[in-house]
Amino acid sequence: MSSIHPLLTLDVVELRDRLASGAVRAVEYVEACLARIAEVEPQVQAWAWLDGDHALAQARALDARRQSGAPIGPLHGLPVGLKDVIDTAKIPTSNGTPLDEGRVPEEDAVLVSRLKAAGAIIMGKTVSTELAFMHPSKTRNPHNPEHTPGGSSAGSAAAVAAAMVPLAVGTQTGGSVIRPASFCGVVGFKPTFGAIARTGVLSQSPTLDTIGVFASSINGAAMVAESLFGYDAKDPATTPSPTPRLLDIAKSDPLVTPMFAFVRPPQFEEVADEESILAFGEITSMLGDQCFETPLPKAFDDAASLRARINFAEMAKDYYGYEKRGRDQLSPEILEAIDKGNDVKARDYLAALDWRKVLNAGLDEVFKRCDAIITPAAPGPAPASLRTTGNPIFNGLWTFCGTPAVTIPLLWSQNGMPIGVQLVGRIGDDARLMRTANWLNKFLKAQEDA
Amino acid sequence: MSSIHPLLTLDVVELRDRLASGAVRAVEYVEACLARIAEVEPQVQAWAWLDGDHALAQARALDARRQSGAPIGPLHGLPVGLKDVIDTAKIPTSNGTPLDEGRVPEEDAVLVSRLKAAGAIIMGKTVSTELAFMHPSKTRNPHNPEHTPGGSSAGSAAAVAAAMVPLAVGTQTGGSVIRPASFCGVVGFKPTFGAIARTGVLSQSPTLDTIGVFASSINGAAMVAESLFGYDAKDPATTPSPTPRLLDIAKSDPLVTPMFAFVRPPQFEEVADEESILAFGEITSMLGDQCFETPLPKAFDDAASLRARINFAEMAKDYYGYEKRGRDQLSPEILEAIDKGNDVKARDYLAALDWRKVLNAGLDEVFKRCDAIITPAAPGPAPASLRTTGNPIFNGLWTFCGTPAVTIPLLWSQNGMPIGVQLVGRIGDDARLMRTANWLNKFLKAQEDA
Repeated sequence: MSSIHPLLTLDVVELRDRLASGAVRAVEYVEACLARIAEVEPQVQAWAWLDGDHALAQARALDARRQSGAPIGPLHGLPVGLKDVIDTAKIPTSNGTPLDEGRVPEEDAVLVSRLKAAGAIIMGKTVSTELAFMHPSKTRNPHNPEHTPGGSSAGSAAAVAAAMVPLAVGTQTGGSVIRPASFCGVVGFKPTFGAIARTGVLSQSPTLDTIGVFASSINGAAMVAESLFGYDAKDPATTPSPTPRLLDIAKSDPLVTPMFAFVRPPQFEEVADEESILAFGEITSMLGDQCFETPLPKAFDDAASLRARINFAEMAKDYYGYEKRGRDQLSPEILEAIDKGNDVKARDYLAALDWRKVLNAGLDEVFKRCDAIITPAAPGPAPASLRTTGNPIFNGLWTFCGTPAVTIPLLWSQNGMPIGVQLVGRIGDDARLMRTANWLNKFLKAQEDA
Repeated sequence: MSSIHPLLTLDVVELRDRLASGAVRAVEYVEACLARIAEVEPQVQAWAWLDGDHALAQARALDARRQSGAPIGPLHGLPVGLKDVIDTAKIPTSNGTPLDEGRVPEEDAVLVSRLKAAGAIIMGKTVSTELAFMHPSKTRNPHNPEHTPGGSSAGSAAAVAAAMVPLAVGTQTGGSVIRPASFCGVVGFKPTFGAIARTGVLSQSPTLDTIGVFASSINGAAMVAESLFGYDAKDPATTPSPTPRLLDIAKSDPLVTPMFAFVRPPQFEEVADEESILAFGEITSMLGDQCFETPLPKAFDDAASLRARINFAEMAKDYYGYEKRGRDQLSPEILEAIDKGNDVKARDYLAALDWRKVLNAGLDEVFKRCDAIITPAAPGPAPASLRTTGNPIFNGLWTFCGTPAVTIPLLWSQNGMPIGVQLVGRIGDDARLMRTANWLNKFLKAQEDA
């Protein structure tokens, strides 16, 4: 990539502090982002909707607000990209399908209201695969345009990876945050199920749909997620409980050196590439006594098919309207899933839901002995293809369990593509997970430098 | 019925006060109940398990506790009958099926712990129909042994009606509390869905299963329910919110004269008997300006089939083990429901769940204009048959909506059987519903006397 405005390489928390103090003006920063977008968007194609004037108008208003002495929010002046399945008032939201082309919501999703209240700038809508499922989008991997950026939050991952915006929001029902973050070489954070309200976001599978975030650093992901966490009476997955101080805790040092449990997910040996298997061997040996390997209980072997059963059944119900309105405009991938979902019996669907508790009871035993599970984010780097979004097999398990997960871009393949290391925490332990992620990141960087 | 011990005809709140003061000893009261049981149980057959010594031992311990000056609970010394689908530690709980004969739970259901903590005496287990469904039990209607007592909480309703115990607990998934209470001429109260925790109670249909109570008076029902309300982390239907002071509010006078909405439920004209239709006409005309008639939105026409779809699908899943263990020991009624449930598609099940919100939005419009809906508890008095438990059609709708409902024994058929008047309140407005029920009861009694 070509030379880049120095503001775009600043850590986003440092940037936030400079925007808050006035050392950097929001307009100045948005202009740098827009220049970067003008340069790389023709190749990356991360945006479904973008209006530079709209972003600049928000930036000017925020600059004026700060100068007036009015209170500013914790994300003051930071542009955010929003996956195009997240409703934005008066701004087109087409859910990645021609069936919703020209659809303009009346209301912001709850998370968009939260971003605005925090002082963030709605930069634009990032490309989603069709209805947040598996059919590839137009977006390319910023590290190599012949490689997939992953999906379904393709544009969000690519926009952050290409430094077009410092932050973006996406969704994960199978592996739609962690996988594209891993493929694009950014931090992706899928919090505990229900931590971020989904009201106003395309509903594919209410039992699984989880909002996640993208940033170039762990602290950046913690910072934006913290503004999004919280109760929403309209989303039954959320609970009215205090939200964690994600950023402060993420930045703090652990009281004791963290312990990691290395987990080979089901089918690890079959689908993971040689490079990744070797790299994980190296990481665990570097961690030494701070890491033990543990098998998952046998019940996890069925987790992928149980998750798919729930996903497809709920999708068949929630996408019924799309199917009726324009089956001919849906991809073979999504039709196959809907058709499978239409065949699921209620009894089997309900039985699958019960396994979530069983699997978490198994995980609880693991989490008694470690701070985080360490496990691959994907079977390898982004496939050299635009006809797939890659394999979400190492993600769906954690989405099903509802455990928080974060991927850190710690590894590189021989062909120059990033590979993420996924950490998984106990349900509700999001802040500890981010603190542990920072510890691991620093530890491995120190080993590299040594 | 023959002459009755004067203690057994005391209002249960008055009785509670006398037990608390020591004016009546628990042993004395339990002895009166046991004598009554010895007399009428051969005909009524309300009990699945009863051990007089066990009840007396509890009574002696409670008497000693009171005499020692230790604090006593709000239900001190009151015997309670528990439907035999409610787990009791060390006491057989056979769920109304030979497949669970000899089953002895290790732990009390949460509601049983609450009763014990409130100082109640676990009198015994009352007869449930098979797995709390439609196949008739051995229990007879105390008002006429050739008539059904209703179901599925047959024994609980009959035991209270026959003055064998002052209080009993049951469950309602369709019409299993309100219908038997109406048929047996006692007060039945089905609180808001999720008000009473179901942990340790047979799960037939988690979306619908609701704990309810039986008493000879509205205040008695309010009093026992108040001790049972509350959060339980293991029952996702419960919420950690303050519980209402049901008895105090039930006993208080409304600030303004209550307003009633008379609702003819779907199929009212087809299934309700002439006597009931006439009686409801009289009640509404007596209420005059305090009552208006309102139709339910068209969507309610499908409520019964939507409820059944959910009930049968969840039953097919939750009773899968019974079906596998002993299909040949299940009744035709339950097999038909399970078979129907096995055929329900997950998509259709999920779509049915959505209607709950729609129906409640419709009800909210009605509740803006009234304190309670007034509507029949059943199509008529208890059928003169032991081969049916009667028709729950006027109950399932409210179970599906999750609204609180109470039936008051206000009417008598020409053949001497009781008929209940059902009041329905807004979700969460249980205390107001009970206060309104008391007002109606007094108002109609005054009209009668006039």
